[in-house]
Amino acid sequence: MAAASVKALFFDVFGTLVDWRSGVAREAQSILKPLGASLDWSAFADAWRDQYQPAMEQVRAGRAPYTKLDVLHRQTLQGTLPRFGLQDLGAAELDELTLAWHRLDAWPDVQPGLARLRRRFLIAPVSNGNIALMADLARRNNIHWDAILGAEHARAFKPQAAVYLAAAQAFNLIPGECLMCAAHPSDLEAAAACGLRVAYISRPEERPGSGERPPSMPLDHSVRSTLELAERLGV
Amino acid sequence: MAAASVKALFFDVFGTLVDWRSGVAREAQSILKPLGASLDWSAFADAWRDQYQPAMEQVRAGRAPYTKLDVLHRQTLQGTLPRFGLQDLGAAELDELTLAWHRLDAWPDVQPGLARLRRRFLIAPVSNGNIALMADLARRNNIHWDAILGAEHARAFKPQAAVYLAAAQAFNLIPGECLMCAAHPSDLEAAAACGLRVAYISRPEERPGSGERPPSMPLDHSVRSTLELAERLGV
Repeated sequence: MAAASVKALFFDVFGTLVDWRSGVAREAQSILKPLGASLDWSAFADAWRDQYQPAMEQVRAGRAPYTKLDVLHRQTLQGTLPRFGLQDLGAAELDELTLAWHRLDAWPDVQPGLARLRRRFLIAPVSNGNIALMADLARRNNIHWDAILGAEHARAFKPQAAVYLAAAQAFNLIPGECLMCAAHPSDLEAAAACGLRVAYISRPEERPGSGERPPSMPLDHSVRSTLELAERLGV
Repeated sequence: MAAASVKALFFDVFGTLVDWRSGVAREAQSILKPLGASLDWSAFADAWRDQYQPAMEQVRAGRAPYTKLDVLHRQTLQGTLPRFGLQDLGAAELDELTLAWHRLDAWPDVQPGLARLRRRFLIAPVSNGNIALMADLARRNNIHWDAILGAEHARAFKPQAAVYLAAAQAFNLIPGECLMCAAHPSDLEAAAACGLRVAYISRPEERPGSGERPPSMPLDHSVRSTLELAERLGV
């Protein structure tokens, strides 16, 4: 790989940069426990997250117009609650719970790693999360993005090609000048199919026991953190 | 004005935050003088800028699809050069000259002013400039935007309502929670018509003698710098 030709780094966010599972569990507990709820908070986070792909698939399949992830999270929350005996929550609690996804913490390497990488590269999230969600996560975790790209910019959801291609175009770059960095093989496969370079950041702590396997495709880089990525790229 | 309800500040960029005129003049001189050109560099910047509104009007009127400003700048550059006897430049020089707009300096108050304002508010450019252009200007001038909104996000050009409304929606806000800050009355009038709050930042140094007058509409704030705006907003 001719690393010199890479000009922008694109990052998946949920799982790759932020710990959605313990964050959603913590936020759900802090909102629902005072209301008397007692449940397995990590199982609640998992159940909510499990509806993420099916909700986006409605849009990808053309059965629904592009809908920002905050709205999908609100809808899938309502589908998740009955299983936990929480179907009677009011609109205010639903709104507050939906904001759990805006209050996630980054893995410890992310703030210093991205700050280092930004010295040489344009950096942007290319996530299925919407702009307001990405902006709040960046503030909370002290990340300085050059722009927020991804699903809302492209009005489509990964792994649709439009998302990766629109991100490259936004920076006036060709796909081969962009490096997609993600913890999920499906994301990297789709990016590579669009001509982007790919870096795998393994995050076994994202959802222990999920059974997701490392990518079996050719990779430009395979690392365990954003700091290791910075080292590999010589920044 | 109930300042407490404002959650995001939107900024016009060319003229309001950055000094396009001396920047374009300086860049043109540094590229063209070594090629033997000798001309009034500020007049060249003005002539190029004068084609800005007519080029965007093609898009606003529906006679052309949305086209990013970098591409319009390249086209209007070719329309500007013959008047200065420079019609024979090669593609490499045209590309380099077009990047002049990526190398503009902010007015001196902008870096500290925006850093202060960001302590309390979401901040974003709502400019007719495209994302790559805004990202480069932010890097050069050490501005930390929460997101890059504006024309490319909305696929439309100010003063079309879609640009202001899409910016508010991107942050999950209603228009009345957003304050549009600009040095140009037409920008503020269009934003106010969409329900945004408006702050006039006077920049008489943008283009001396242009004859542009201060706004005659009701204003939430009228200031001479972003630092004065921070003071008015109590940040």
